[in-house]
Amino acid sequence: MTEKEHDPVYPAKRLEDFIKDVLVALGLPEGDARTCAARMTEADLRGVDTHGIFRLPQYCKRIRAGGINLTPHVRPARENAVTALVDGDNGMGHVVMSFATELAIRKASLSGLAWVGIFNSNHAGPAAVYSTMPLAHDMIGMYMTVANANHMAPWGGVERILGTNPISIAIPTGEEPPIALDIATTVSSYGKVKLAAQKGESIPEGWMADRKGRPITDPKRSEEGFLLPIGGYKGYGLNVVIGMLAGVLNGAPFGRDVVDFNKAPATPNRGGHMIFAMRVDNFQPVDEFKREMDRVIREIRSSERMEGVDRIWLPGEMEYERVRERRKNGVPVAASTVQQLRQLAAELNLTDRLD
Amino acid sequence: MTEKEHDPVYPAKRLEDFIKDVLVALGLPEGDARTCAARMTEADLRGVDTHGIFRLPQYCKRIRAGGINLTPHVRPARENAVTALVDGDNGMGHVVMSFATELAIRKASLSGLAWVGIFNSNHAGPAAVYSTMPLAHDMIGMYMTVANANHMAPWGGVERILGTNPISIAIPTGEEPPIALDIATTVSSYGKVKLAAQKGESIPEGWMADRKGRPITDPKRSEEGFLLPIGGYKGYGLNVVIGMLAGVLNGAPFGRDVVDFNKAPATPNRGGHMIFAMRVDNFQPVDEFKREMDRVIREIRSSERMEGVDRIWLPGEMEYERVRERRKNGVPVAASTVQQLRQLAAELNLTDRLD
Repeated sequence: MTEKEHDPVYPAKRLEDFIKDVLVALGLPEGDARTCAARMTEADLRGVDTHGIFRLPQYCKRIRAGGINLTPHVRPARENAVTALVDGDNGMGHVVMSFATELAIRKASLSGLAWVGIFNSNHAGPAAVYSTMPLAHDMIGMYMTVANANHMAPWGGVERILGTNPISIAIPTGEEPPIALDIATTVSSYGKVKLAAQKGESIPEGWMADRKGRPITDPKRSEEGFLLPIGGYKGYGLNVVIGMLAGVLNGAPFGRDVVDFNKAPATPNRGGHMIFAMRVDNFQPVDEFKREMDRVIREIRSSERMEGVDRIWLPGEMEYERVRERRKNGVPVAASTVQQLRQLAAELNLTDRLD
Repeated sequence: MTEKEHDPVYPAKRLEDFIKDVLVALGLPEGDARTCAARMTEADLRGVDTHGIFRLPQYCKRIRAGGINLTPHVRPARENAVTALVDGDNGMGHVVMSFATELAIRKASLSGLAWVGIFNSNHAGPAAVYSTMPLAHDMIGMYMTVANANHMAPWGGVERILGTNPISIAIPTGEEPPIALDIATTVSSYGKVKLAAQKGESIPEGWMADRKGRPITDPKRSEEGFLLPIGGYKGYGLNVVIGMLAGVLNGAPFGRDVVDFNKAPATPNRGGHMIFAMRVDNFQPVDEFKREMDRVIREIRSSERMEGVDRIWLPGEMEYERVRERRKNGVPVAASTVQQLRQLAAELNLTDRLD
């Protein structure tokens, strides 16, 4: 997951084509395979390396185990001018969420705003990939999802019945990079803990606690405890509310019902998400709003920095810069991931083996 | 702010009448005075003692200094079926927000959901007072506001150009207390820091940092530093996004433009908020949804607790219990606040002096 000197680097287009070819070889219709490939490559371009091509072997495992519907009938189960409840029919999460987000944008174009809930979906990649889609239409975007594995306990509890439930909010700007907040409600992801364990490194106090509430700093002990929420009871509360809005409201699992997508590849995930889109011009003329956003962003960025701090970043700005950098210089992929991908390509008799 | 043995206790109705009488004596129309009194008393009932009658002297100071419009023309400056931008005309925040929330509920009743932005408003009390208003209509509520004073720095910065910008989300339930998350995006409020200073107590590490990023634990040194966000850069990002949605989108101040309502009593606050209401039955039959909410709540509450923890609380449950307790046993008011209120009553020649 971390970039190393010897990690191979590929043009984004190369990775995108590879992902598409793998998914087509596994039976996805070409259009859907392209959609997945585009969303996953965007994750890699944004630097969310844990949610891009790194996930392809895991997705393939689910597909091969029969845990994913390759030809889903993704459709609104209920609908009005400003809301919809989309049945993902157990399709790839990227396909389902792309459909839902486009639906939200279409409704918001006509009516001013829209909230679309989703059920029967799957892991869809990083939140900001969807929350930022409305930006091109001068709309604000918001996305929440029920995470696909439970690694957190309720505040005061010890049972792992909550996930990292993230929220992402994107806001249009003028000349400045768009605002794109994308945060899990836990201090750290479980992936980072596992990575530290692999590397034999320790994790900082505050990431995890054991069943007596004492900090865990040895990631090899992670099974003895649970991830901690941001801001203690505050992050716990936000986590629960996100689970209810992205899960319960859509008839999707939240809590013990969540299917751990690492452990049960053949069991439909039944994942729940929500996407919201709202036109800026409900409230302000678009140009005025964007000018004011730019002004506020510059005010924050140019405010006095702490000694030793090179730059104050706005939410999403770092990812924006990384997209530019990686479009230019290519996307590094961890050597261990490349090895897995090559094996996958061989199994599927693909001509492209990422050599 | 903390309850002490010797703090006098009043029936909620008594406090509500007193607040109404004070505001009427200061020139507020009786209906608006009643609205303010109801919202402020609800804050006290919920146990948000820093946002109820405790604030009355401060509000009165602003009113007397001419900083509040006593007879505002609160109205939508822009409006469609599902959004509105409400001009608060510098009225009392409670009056403006009550108008805006009722408007959001009315629109959501007809159209399914509504987002109402507000500008030219003032401090309106605790967020959950507004986010919970849609609950009675089987709607989800969401409220965000730009805080009225800046005590936080950007992540990596040292300048206090951000407030505690809170978010509140309320979700209907069946037999269980409704979910009502109400969190500032800072670890602590500035009020708690000032209170610790008054009492000569220290504050925990993690609440504040100085200009070199070192923890401040002596609250008397609070002017040397700034409040810290929940979850580091994550809470900072959430704080900024809330400021943009509640402020910039509504043409209201966010950042350096924010008027510190403690320091400039005669300067209109121009405060920005947002309120969102959405019918549950866009997505699920109300009864089914509520049953499932109850089930999930009970699952979380009854999950295994950490040693020494008596109870796992859901967001808003503690406040719900406190309302019941205080409706029965009365609302304690800090002796120092009572003294201020008595002086206020004397100055206004009120017959009720909270004796």
